[in-house]
Amino acid sequence: MTVEVEVTIKLKRGVTDPEGENTKKALNLLGFNNVHSVKSMKTFRIAIEGKEERDAVKYEVEEMCKKLLANPVIHDYKISVVK
Amino acid sequence: MTVEVEVTIKLKRGVTDPEGENTKKALNLLGFNNVHSVKSMKTFRIAIEGKEERDAVKYEVEEMCKKLLANPVIHDYKISVVK
Repeated sequence: MTVEVEVTIKLKRGVTDPEGENTKKALNLLGFNNVHSVKSMKTFRIAIEGKEERDAVKYEVEEMCKKLLANPVIHDYKISVVK
Repeated sequence: MTVEVEVTIKLKRGVTDPEGENTKKALNLLGFNNVHSVKSMKTFRIAIEGKEERDAVKYEVEEMCKKLLANPVIHDYKISVVK
């Protein structure tokens, strides 16, 4: 059985987000003047085989975040089992 | 009033995703051998001022996707009003 997990990695509050800021500027220049702010995030959708228990899967994905996917100095992450 | 919208931009089926593939390889090398696939996506959280009607907001964000955020040749996008 395959479980699919979505990991959303975003910058911590207070960390500058140049991609989001520049996207906001570009949208304003294109005429979307009511855009107040843009924040950029990264999402990974990970398919994991052989585990069925949601808690065990979440624990494993948290290990992946700690070891590879996120930088704890600047990133917050959210894990949600989608299927 | 401010409405917050999340736009998730992912690659269309059949478009190669080198970031996802390399993340999968790295996770396997780190010992997470039950990772079957990884797909990478980009999310923008956009705060829009002055509009209250959800349909009007969604329509405007769709215009943003067409004009700037997504490339229709390779990307699919999903818009959801979160607040």
